[in-house]
Amino acid sequence: MTTAYTTHLTEAVVDSLKGTADPRLSELLAALTRHLHAFVRETEPTMAEWEQAIDFLTATGQTCTDTRQEFVLLSDVLGVSMLVETINSDGRGDVTESTVLGPFHMTESPVRELGADIDLVGGGEPCVVSGRVLSRDGTPLPGAVLDVWQANAEGYYDVQQPEVQPPGNGRGLFTADAEGRFWFRTCVPSPYPIPTDGPVGDLLRATGRHPYRPAHIHFIASAEGHAPVTTHIFVAGSDHLDSDAVFAVKESLVQDFTETDDPSLAREFGVPNPFRHARFDLVLNPSRS
Amino acid sequence: MTTAYTTHLTEAVVDSLKGTADPRLSELLAALTRHLHAFVRETEPTMAEWEQAIDFLTATGQTCTDTRQEFVLLSDVLGVSMLVETINSDGRGDVTESTVLGPFHMTESPVRELGADIDLVGGGEPCVVSGRVLSRDGTPLPGAVLDVWQANAEGYYDVQQPEVQPPGNGRGLFTADAEGRFWFRTCVPSPYPIPTDGPVGDLLRATGRHPYRPAHIHFIASAEGHAPVTTHIFVAGSDHLDSDAVFAVKESLVQDFTETDDPSLAREFGVPNPFRHARFDLVLNPSRS
Ligand SMILES: [Fe+2]
Ligand SMILES: [Fe+2]
Repeated sequence: MTTAYTTHLTEAVVDSLKGTADPRLSELLAALTRHLHAFVRETEPTMAEWEQAIDFLTATGQTCTDTRQEFVLLSDVLGVSMLVETINSDGRGDVTESTVLGPFHMTESPVRELGADIDLVGGGEPCVVSGRVLSRDGTPLPGAVLDVWQANAEGYYDVQQPEVQPPGNGRGLFTADAEGRFWFRTCVPSPYPIPTDGPVGDLLRATGRHPYRPAHIHFIASAEGHAPVTTHIFVAGSDHLDSDAVFAVKESLVQDFTETDDPSLAREFGVPNPFRHARFDLVLNPSRS
Repeated sequence: MTTAYTTHLTEAVVDSLKGTADPRLSELLAALTRHLHAFVRETEPTMAEWEQAIDFLTATGQTCTDTRQEFVLLSDVLGVSMLVETINSDGRGDVTESTVLGPFHMTESPVRELGADIDLVGGGEPCVVSGRVLSRDGTPLPGAVLDVWQANAEGYYDVQQPEVQPPGNGRGLFTADAEGRFWFRTCVPSPYPIPTDGPVGDLLRATGRHPYRPAHIHFIASAEGHAPVTTHIFVAGSDHLDSDAVFAVKESLVQDFTETDDPSLAREFGVPNPFRHARFDLVLNPSRS
């Protein structure tokens, strides 16, 4: 009888959504109701467990600030962000794969010239990142825009260390040259823990999971007439490549940051010799017409 | 290929939960991950829709205060609270049915003597509520405790109108007498809208749903050796009995608030004549041993 009642309840909620003006919202909410109710029916949470869930969600919302997004973090550690990103990624052809945006793309990246150093503080291992932005058929894409952001050598983003890092440290908005080439200087990023002083940190501790992400640099590459890609480049050999706290590693995104001993190349890029050099192309699909 | 990847992703997240110390938490999180991923796979949200969901959840958390619980409200309007309450209710025998706690049981109800008036402000229609607390076999339960709370005649709880209502208005903690009887005075409650100035209000507007709840008085009845029940008594004939915004109405909980013209009874209860009189028994199951 309880089963009959609860089934009736689910349909009553779905029925109540029939006046939704936007048909897509109606579809999303009806599916959400059915899946959420199915979860509750399957697990039969106690009232105390339901209250814990309410408290957890409330604390998650209240941990969010202008520079911290704890719900994105929750979505990340449950693999939901990666799932949504993958569903939305363009699966056509052999192009650069996408991965999660992450919670630290919160501020505008400052416009910088090609070759600029995005490490405004120094202290890390000097590194050059270079390559080309190409269309799927190999055609270079002059004027392509790269939005780049990364943690410093200690594993913190600028917004996490406002007293140590100037705003825009580790960030840059670059425009590829007439041959689709890009290059910039930085320090080699470090693995870092996602913030663990909030509800998501409590969740990781309760589940015995570590909070680390393998070392990476974030990119959003966009070019006229092409589908943009949101992705990372991971540092080959980094710790945690096989246990990223947010499930974002794809094999094709792991790149060598090669130890390079080449005084003339170092001079050309304006870095001390030796340096690390990551070279890769970002390949975009033409827009669907 | 995307399907194979996303299935693998779901299992990777479930695998990552295997170190959870508490086996029940492990079960809940694994089920949550599977149902949440199934929802995402079925509806294929765009990145913009995912961002809207993140923003909605964040705003819901940030709307919560000491006297407002917007996540409970969200759970209520999606029928989740009623589902959890029903799953946890004791289905044995012909006892008082349960319904949702609701978001307004936020403060301790003040201890009051039997017969006290919980309407500290006045202005509504005078009303007597009386009856007995019984065990399933009809035995009275002396010393049973009733936690009572209700909105005033304008449809607001004390915590919603701190400048108009003194704390504890519409609330009382009563102890049944030696024969299991209870009685108290109040005003007839009104239907009221759940708060619509937050994200849940936005959701109701988007879905074309009204925010009203039929008139009701909340009870938590408890007695030694018995399973407590969290419930409401709904006012028969109230508007919105068939479209409660939180899906909490059960037929057995609707009671007559009878127009009573009986000067001697009015004198006995200490109310002006005529008055409204709600009479019902609250019936509890013996505890499972
Ligand atoms: Fe990152
Ligand atoms: Fe209520």
